[in-house]
Amino acid sequence: MLENEDILSMCKRRGFLWRSAEIYGGEAGFYDYGHLGAKLLDSWKRKWKEYFLGLDENYHMIYPNNIMPYSVMEASGHVDHFSDLMIRCKRCDSYFRGDHLIEEETGENAEWMGKEDMKKSIQNLDLSCPDCGGHFSEPEDFNMMFQVSLGPTGQKKGFLRPETAQGIYINFRREYRALRKQMPLGLATIGSAFRNEISPRQVVFRKREFLQAELQIFFVPGIHDEKFEKKYQKIEDEQVNIKRETWDESKEVKLKDMDDLPPFYLYHLGKMYEFYTDVMKLSSKDIRFRELSEDEKAFYNKIHFDLEVDFETLNGWKEVSGLHYRSDYDLKQHQENSNQSMSVSTDDGKKIPHVIELSFGIDRNLWSLLDKGYNDGDRVWLDLPKEMAARQVAVFPLVRKDGLPEKSREIFTKLRSDFRVAWEKSGSIGKRYARNDEIGTSYCITVDYDTLEDESVTIRDLKTTEQIRVKIEELKDVLKGLIQGRKKFEDHLERED
Amino acid sequence: MLENEDILSMCKRRGFLWRSAEIYGGEAGFYDYGHLGAKLLDSWKRKWKEYFLGLDENYHMIYPNNIMPYSVMEASGHVDHFSDLMIRCKRCDSYFRGDHLIEEETGENAEWMGKEDMKKSIQNLDLSCPDCGGHFSEPEDFNMMFQVSLGPTGQKKGFLRPETAQGIYINFRREYRALRKQMPLGLATIGSAFRNEISPRQVVFRKREFLQAELQIFFVPGIHDEKFEKKYQKIEDEQVNIKRETWDESKEVKLKDMDDLPPFYLYHLGKMYEFYTDVMKLSSKDIRFRELSEDEKAFYNKIHFDLEVDFETLNGWKEVSGLHYRSDYDLKQHQENSNQSMSVSTDDGKKIPHVIELSFGIDRNLWSLLDKGYNDGDRVWLDLPKEMAARQVAVFPLVRKDGLPEKSREIFTKLRSDFRVAWEKSGSIGKRYARNDEIGTSYCITVDYDTLEDESVTIRDLKTTEQIRVKIEELKDVLKGLIQGRKKFEDHLERED
Repeated sequence: MLENEDILSMCKRRGFLWRSAEIYGGEAGFYDYGHLGAKLLDSWKRKWKEYFLGLDENYHMIYPNNIMPYSVMEASGHVDHFSDLMIRCKRCDSYFRGDHLIEEETGENAEWMGKEDMKKSIQNLDLSCPDCGGHFSEPEDFNMMFQVSLGPTGQKKGFLRPETAQGIYINFRREYRALRKQMPLGLATIGSAFRNEISPRQVVFRKREFLQAELQIFFVPGIHDEKFEKKYQKIEDEQVNIKRETWDESKEVKLKDMDDLPPFYLYHLGKMYEFYTDVMKLSSKDIRFRELSEDEKAFYNKIHFDLEVDFETLNGWKEVSGLHYRSDYDLKQHQENSNQSMSVSTDDGKKIPHVIELSFGIDRNLWSLLDKGYNDGDRVWLDLPKEMAARQVAVFPLVRKDGLPEKSREIFTKLRSDFRVAWEKSGSIGKRYARNDEIGTSYCITVDYDTLEDESVTIRDLKTTEQIRVKIEELKDVLKGLIQGRKKFEDHLERED
Repeated sequence: MLENEDILSMCKRRGFLWRSAEIYGGEAGFYDYGHLGAKLLDSWKRKWKEYFLGLDENYHMIYPNNIMPYSVMEASGHVDHFSDLMIRCKRCDSYFRGDHLIEEETGENAEWMGKEDMKKSIQNLDLSCPDCGGHFSEPEDFNMMFQVSLGPTGQKKGFLRPETAQGIYINFRREYRALRKQMPLGLATIGSAFRNEISPRQVVFRKREFLQAELQIFFVPGIHDEKFEKKYQKIEDEQVNIKRETWDESKEVKLKDMDDLPPFYLYHLGKMYEFYTDVMKLSSKDIRFRELSEDEKAFYNKIHFDLEVDFETLNGWKEVSGLHYRSDYDLKQHQENSNQSMSVSTDDGKKIPHVIELSFGIDRNLWSLLDKGYNDGDRVWLDLPKEMAARQVAVFPLVRKDGLPEKSREIFTKLRSDFRVAWEKSGSIGKRYARNDEIGTSYCITVDYDTLEDESVTIRDLKTTEQIRVKIEELKDVLKGLIQGRKKFEDHLERED
């Protein structure tokens, strides 16, 4: 059984991620990305942008701020409603989320509970403080937004955004005009979000500062969805692993088998699924879309499926992203509160657009790559998608003499502009392989004595440890073919025979 | 005379940037980047990373958090010292930075003033409130960090980082080990920083939330600087525009003419300067390095030059980045406060590394591109570096019939993966040119009736509006050559003759 700690230990030691401010004892709910984590993160972001902005030329990135004025979060409903029920141990003064304690006891979702339900449930289950055994206070609301004071008077309030979405909604009106009123319009952003979690836990899964990638698509149903329908028809036969609310288990079905859902929704569901299988290279047995029940989903979400990954380190299925049909709730709220029209002109008069939200927790997505990619059998190796790997290529001299370091250095220099590549000369070849296996270097290249004669090098495959011999002049093309998946390692092996 | 408002108006209308939450009246000190601003920002970041991480293979990106624990900002000295002197109008209750009001009156820097100096200066100058004419209170300290409360008790404090640097210093120890103790070590980050400015102003110049790109280079002087010296020797003859503290005016000198400064400093000064001339394409008459006086610079900065740009919209020279030799101050502070050793092993025993900091205010750098690039003579056009331009290429059909839209669409599709490109069919050709000139599209491509016959198109140059005719099959290569600066537009013109 793989534990969080197995992966975290590698991540800390090798430079992926660790608790923030660890020299000061570490701060709960905060993690920093080190030099390898930063590379993985940047690659994930780039692939996400390429894929989702590539869906339509009227989809664009924008960058709103982290700090949001009070008015925005009031209009969105977060000031009044963005709270969790908190219970306090009367003996040791520790705070807990009531629903989490109930879930741990019963194994059933308790997020839907109100104060009364929770109070009864805690009594019935006879729950006591997991730290000291003390009794609990009654549940109380705790708003999860971080508040800041703006300017010198201390009277003006703002919040750190608890989601990136609101920064997009408040800019819809201006972008709609700047982009010359073309619909549907997609506005995406990638950035931080902040939630003052009562008890941060599960490594990067419940952080107080986390990263989101969101694409908000604005359209008027019945008017702008022809475009989605056409695109949907091309993929309606695709298979996805689905858990409908009324089903006992998840199963693979065709998109068109869910014809109670509108094409605009199914199209984006199919595309998100494809991102997980084709770009993040996760196996369809490890991912599913789960439909949320009425109790679970927010009242403004008319349709809500979460993309879940089956984590080995986290006891099974956990949400890493979601597809939310939010209707016209958001723009209506901002129209009412700001007194600025959010409507668009259509052949059928002025209409307030609806929103489909594609929302990704980036830290969770990266953790899913680490969880599913980590192998610790005979050797420890990390199977990352080659186009996202923190390090794609490592170049070694077989020995540290006779011109091999210089030759390998030359090759490293040639590859630098096209790949995430490192040059290593210290330790035995075996140790260098082991170090690179552990961080998921897709290909290790060794320069040996033969290289000086025949201008060719050895490429070793991370997954199989098999090796092929390639001419230096062909090296760049071979590596590109392998990394982009146009060529398989086996094909090169056969050519060797 | 170009005003902020000229550029801001274009930026708002076309999608570069505008006040955050403008539908709620806008929030002072906050700006959002729209779809064109986001492209410019992302390109700037990519070029910055390429250039500065390219200086050495042991320079790496990391991503620390925005929220910093109290302990970190206490150790760095920000809790006690990161404050500005604030004065309040006793009549209308407005707050001001005292140094700014004095500077506006006298034209001289007043940032160095303590409470007593400021009090006297305000009395001597007989300053009164610019809003209502009222009298001022005595100057008081105002800490500019945004404070947040961590967790449910409300007792634990954190801060939004006022600079990205501290997040790097607290991770030095772990990265030094993860990177197998190679020195010098460079750790860079790009991200937000937050300062609760008393009176935000000058558009993006004094924002409450802003973007920084910083490279912190760790080395032990006398032990690890051989590498810098060698590299410095290659560039010591380069000319830079410099204003030394004791000089009346700035002048162009060779790096080696400043031989009172250490080679490790001059090397990075030269490289920063090159970034401004070669990557950001600013003219050396518009940039200079200004040495700060003892009064101006922080006590831990042994050497401090700011890179300043001569802004038309902001009345002259303003700082956009800085090069700070911070000595071993930062790591020493964190070693003392955390009780964790920050030293590295050298042939001369254990030593605490020193830091050279290359610090860039990204918003200011982008504003310098807009300010220096904006031309409003006969036509409005924006001269952005082609590799950074928000839009590099626009493709038009001459008319909206006879297959020209389809043909131009084909060409657009071919160019999409290599350039930031748009396809436009609405409005007259003249209007399309004007729109693209305004946002700085480097090249406009027109598909006309001849295209259907001879498979060639027209490319129009932003700067000169001159046109060349190019075969479609050569189009991608020609555009790449032009954008990367390997080819000049004139060379193609000549070929036309």
